[in-house]
Amino acid sequence: MNRNDADVELFDATLRDGTQREGLSLSCDDKLRIARRLDALGVTFIEGGWPGSNPKDADFFRRAREIPWRTATIVAFGATRRAGCKVEDDLSVRALVEARTKACSVFGKSSILHVEEVLRTTRDENLRMIEETVAYVRAAGRRVIYDAEHFFDGWREDAAYALETLRAALRGGAETIVLCDTNGGSMPWQIADTVTTVRRTLDARVGIHAHDDAGCAVANTLAAVRAGARHVQGTINGYGERCGNANLCAIVPTLELKLGLRCLPKGGLRELRDVAHLVAEIANVAADEHAPYVGRSAFAHKGGVHVAAVRRNPATYQHIDPGLVGNEMRVVVSELSGRGNVLSKAEELGLRVAEGTEVDVLDQIKQAEARGYSYEAAEASVALMLRRRDAAYRAPFALLEYKVMVGRRERGDAETFAEATIKVEVGDHVVHTAGEGNGPVSALDSALRKALTPAYPCLARTHLADYKVRILDGTDGTRATTRVLIHHTDGERRWSTVGASPNIIEASYAALADGIEYALLQTEKADEGANRIATG
Amino acid sequence: MNRNDADVELFDATLRDGTQREGLSLSCDDKLRIARRLDALGVTFIEGGWPGSNPKDADFFRRAREIPWRTATIVAFGATRRAGCKVEDDLSVRALVEARTKACSVFGKSSILHVEEVLRTTRDENLRMIEETVAYVRAAGRRVIYDAEHFFDGWREDAAYALETLRAALRGGAETIVLCDTNGGSMPWQIADTVTTVRRTLDARVGIHAHDDAGCAVANTLAAVRAGARHVQGTINGYGERCGNANLCAIVPTLELKLGLRCLPKGGLRELRDVAHLVAEIANVAADEHAPYVGRSAFAHKGGVHVAAVRRNPATYQHIDPGLVGNEMRVVVSELSGRGNVLSKAEELGLRVAEGTEVDVLDQIKQAEARGYSYEAAEASVALMLRRRDAAYRAPFALLEYKVMVGRRERGDAETFAEATIKVEVGDHVVHTAGEGNGPVSALDSALRKALTPAYPCLARTHLADYKVRILDGTDGTRATTRVLIHHTDGERRWSTVGASPNIIEASYAALADGIEYALLQTEKADEGANRIATG
Repeated sequence: MNRNDADVELFDATLRDGTQREGLSLSCDDKLRIARRLDALGVTFIEGGWPGSNPKDADFFRRAREIPWRTATIVAFGATRRAGCKVEDDLSVRALVEARTKACSVFGKSSILHVEEVLRTTRDENLRMIEETVAYVRAAGRRVIYDAEHFFDGWREDAAYALETLRAALRGGAETIVLCDTNGGSMPWQIADTVTTVRRTLDARVGIHAHDDAGCAVANTLAAVRAGARHVQGTINGYGERCGNANLCAIVPTLELKLGLRCLPKGGLRELRDVAHLVAEIANVAADEHAPYVGRSAFAHKGGVHVAAVRRNPATYQHIDPGLVGNEMRVVVSELSGRGNVLSKAEELGLRVAEGTEVDVLDQIKQAEARGYSYEAAEASVALMLRRRDAAYRAPFALLEYKVMVGRRERGDAETFAEATIKVEVGDHVVHTAGEGNGPVSALDSALRKALTPAYPCLARTHLADYKVRILDGTDGTRATTRVLIHHTDGERRWSTVGASPNIIEASYAALADGIEYALLQTEKADEGANRIATG
Repeated sequence: MNRNDADVELFDATLRDGTQREGLSLSCDDKLRIARRLDALGVTFIEGGWPGSNPKDADFFRRAREIPWRTATIVAFGATRRAGCKVEDDLSVRALVEARTKACSVFGKSSILHVEEVLRTTRDENLRMIEETVAYVRAAGRRVIYDAEHFFDGWREDAAYALETLRAALRGGAETIVLCDTNGGSMPWQIADTVTTVRRTLDARVGIHAHDDAGCAVANTLAAVRAGARHVQGTINGYGERCGNANLCAIVPTLELKLGLRCLPKGGLRELRDVAHLVAEIANVAADEHAPYVGRSAFAHKGGVHVAAVRRNPATYQHIDPGLVGNEMRVVVSELSGRGNVLSKAEELGLRVAEGTEVDVLDQIKQAEARGYSYEAAEASVALMLRRRDAAYRAPFALLEYKVMVGRRERGDAETFAEATIKVEVGDHVVHTAGEGNGPVSALDSALRKALTPAYPCLARTHLADYKVRILDGTDGTRATTRVLIHHTDGERRWSTVGASPNIIEASYAALADGIEYALLQTEKADEGANRIATG
């Protein structure tokens, strides 16, 4: 979508402002993964970082230049030049231009408190800093979005001066003026009044950047749009400093579905739930189950009265059709839907299931989930569970014993080691061997693979691609249950398995062994196919 | 506080609507604990439950009658009578009255969709159901708050009928008419318009009950109050079905501090943070660290630019003084930090820092973060880093060697074991001992503690309270770096440490050892204090 097709420009600040959230940090790879997903979703701008402030961000922009972006414009963020410094001598402004993005966001001060107490400069010098910085970045060929920091606070201190700062940015050549409620304390009616006056006074595209310190970031953004703002800044899941930024996952559905303003290309809105969950996963933040529109519980009904009503008519207790944002209605505590889930999973995996087996498997899943397993993201473990119900199935190996040793010795150079021994039964043979690694799980993986590869040479192609750990019920300390999720790949396909135990090594072994057994199951199926072709 | 002293009546629905949240359930004892705390805080009404719907709630009301409530009025909740049933024959209405509370909330239907599709009755019968039920409960001597369910949806369908339902409740004798946005899909401007019209049309006290399905519950409540509502329903931390109810912890500070409307007795507001955390703890829900006003991160500053500014003037990046709601400003130390972050952290921790040391520590932090450490949530590790820069500091112990063994044997009953041996230097002694646990980290923790407790008996009070693991850059499989975050507690205080390594055991050891060293540092400080008192 060309940005002109959208009624409202979406400016995603997850990679910059979002990472100001306490506890959230993103690697350069993480940032690129998120940026690609947002580009596919169809946001107008993606703010990648502050190249003047840290080397990781400079690396992001270097790598981003190699990527053919479909819809999004990548934006570098930076401040106005320092007071009393020539703009071309300001290293931070130069770093901004050197990021070589098509567009830059430049932030400057609108509040006299900040001009005098933080910058410690004069009101006039601040106006020059804004105009000259914007003009310099424009002259370097960049589009400029001007972020008027603390605009609403500045407006309450001295509205005339706050307006002057916007005029300075427009003289410099900014294409959009973004009014920021940086401290997040403004109220929707204040935002509406101020945006209305600014729009009446200046001939410019106006944007809004809100924070959630009073729990009003979404409403403040909507109020600004109703008052004429056509550029909305926010982050996925509302990540951001303190209480967070305006949550695009709550704002976009309201703008599209309730205000009739297009923000995303056709079909984009239906991807919103998936995008919210993917970003949470990459950021390693537990997804907020109660988030508006995209949360797992957003359309979940618990009360008996409500459940009876939604079964008659979903509109009775739902403000929108959840499918519009890629979410779904759920009834909490539902035994009936379970069987259907298992059956459709079996079909999906191409497994025949004997009559009634799905009930036993469902039972087994419920028991395992009570012990900390979670099968939502571990379909290979579900496939094995179904397969093992088949009387004709023979497991390709059986564990007799394993032992993992990890240690450190402080003699001269500190030295750590991780070693595993394993004894498994493969057909009629007992194999007893050992392996090492740079941690207990890689040592165990290495020993298991070494024990099995002579009998199953195909395992040489399979390797562990991802390893995730989650501690459940954090308050029990090291006695808490650990859930391990492992992804294997053979270079083409990728599958996931799960293990859970209070002992992290035991949980890891369960997931590792399932992953390898599943690999062998796939090869066996492939061999059967090959045999049929050979004998057919 | 007599309810007449408050500008706005607070009606807490945590014990009833709050428990509709997926995953939340409260025992009768839990409910009583929360109710007592809310009474001490000074809310006007506490809705205890729906006595007609479950026996647990009936038990609550029986026990609540024995308690001398200071400020709050306990409220029982129930529906209007069934269609075509005499009110005195309706068991649910009778259960409501039998709860023997001073006040009842009665909910009825305002929306024709609900009258016709859910109740399957006529518009006139619905009006009779409302009036007769309210009148019956009034005749039994109860004050009645009438909840007009789906009022805003009903208003959009047929405003005249929606108003008729309110008139029916007033004829029955309701003292307050609460307009409910039950599905949470209304916008603040719609709420403002509707409340204004209702207030103009009816001579009654009007209340608001909002849900957060569009992320606007707080703003919707504020909009209603500005339009004249003087009774606010909500829950602590916004707990409630789907996306939750209006969050009183966000609404009350805004009403008091920004709109100048008194909701709580003098001093109440300063207790809000504690109440929010206590309710989260009783409900066994992790407290939302980013919650407006009361979250742990609500006044936490991470970016170096922001930290430098708040050190000059806290108002630069805070919309209110955090002390007003019982919260505090915090500085987060990370790779985005400047020297100011480290200095503020040292002050917060009560450590003197030699000139220039903060630069070295910042450097050390940045290098460690490049290897996978993250200090944002590990203040005790930062404190140790600062402390170790002091030439006079002697570490209380030094590791010589550890070894962890984990294994499983499949003989008869599968048997797993986890054992650790450790050799540490404590003063002039070398201690060599062993411990076991149900996983490698608990075994190591047990061995380390066993080695040190003879020399430091105070460690008996310290224990591990939480253990978190994060795999960084997941795509490297088991070779990826693992970050471990450990929380220790001595029953009163709580502190956090971090470790990172490709080897999860090594990462865990680093965090464990820091946590124990920090415990000893605190005891030493306490002892110094005691000595000063003894010798002073």
